[in-house]
Amino acid sequence: MDMLKTILDRRSIRKYTGDPVSRDKLISLAKAGMAAPTSRDTRHFNFIIVDDESVINKLLEGLPYSKMMATAKHAIIVTSDLSIAHGGAETDYWIQDCSAAAQNITLAATALGLGACWTAAHPREERVNFVKKVIELPQNVNPLCVIAVGIPTGEEKPRDKFDPSHVFFNKWGKLS
Amino acid sequence: MDMLKTILDRRSIRKYTGDPVSRDKLISLAKAGMAAPTSRDTRHFNFIIVDDESVINKLLEGLPYSKMMATAKHAIIVTSDLSIAHGGAETDYWIQDCSAAAQNITLAATALGLGACWTAAHPREERVNFVKKVIELPQNVNPLCVIAVGIPTGEEKPRDKFDPSHVFFNKWGKLS
Repeated sequence: MDMLKTILDRRSIRKYTGDPVSRDKLISLAKAGMAAPTSRDTRHFNFIIVDDESVINKLLEGLPYSKMMATAKHAIIVTSDLSIAHGGAETDYWIQDCSAAAQNITLAATALGLGACWTAAHPREERVNFVKKVIELPQNVNPLCVIAVGIPTGEEKPRDKFDPSHVFFNKWGKLS
Repeated sequence: MDMLKTILDRRSIRKYTGDPVSRDKLISLAKAGMAAPTSRDTRHFNFIIVDDESVINKLLEGLPYSKMMATAKHAIIVTSDLSIAHGGAETDYWIQDCSAAAQNITLAATALGLGACWTAAHPREERVNFVKKVIELPQNVNPLCVIAVGIPTGEEKPRDKFDPSHVFFNKWGKLS
């Protein structure tokens, strides 16, 4: 049941102490991301772990909604090799797969006592191109999101987002 | 650390016993889905729990890759109210949000000893329209996926999908 609690307790963290996170833990997050399902099992993921402060600072220059990275100090960038993903750039299966991987990462971070905040690159073309340039992604590799990772201050508490009026049984509008 | 194990052990389950799953457990899955992040915190999710065999059978008629639902006997359909989601139908934030919710559901299923298999409705228009018709979704509500849920036979074992050659540090291609 621990897992359910982690899922319910996870929230976007924007307040960090600035303390370091070990590479072992960051690799565990990438491992969690890689365990996500991919359409037709194409396994098209690559994860870029950012723990070099100069790269964090470069990323901050072009990502308007990622200010929390300044104190988080680490990030994981979830990318898809579109030459491998089912449907490539023509469909959006890669978006679904990368989103599942990103969610695995935010949950694994929560489980490890870290904080995480998912910030979008895609679908904003200027942010996608900016991230690709900073971390030198090949043409066929697209970043979905930049996940800030760090040590949370603990000020931000879990929130209960459950609203039973948005759960139906067997058809729209049927509450039991 | 239980959570990390659940993330790594989760896999798509296609072999089910056909035994019933309680409503309490199915509602826990919807609760897990609703705990996922949404772009700009728009909370545009609705979940349709399917545990009526006649509805499962109807869904099977139009979803070619969902045959495992015949023995899973239950499903959760993840939907977005596009009149609320950030960017509506014009951007794909709703896809990212619903994918995070779907992943929460497959992980919660694993944690509860259930099996789950994420099958796509979107981006296949004919499947989206079919699902909308069967469960009577309003015009502005789009289904992302139909997740089969049931009791796994246990034949399908976890697989280790970690490949360290797809994890880089600070820029593409840098392995340490």
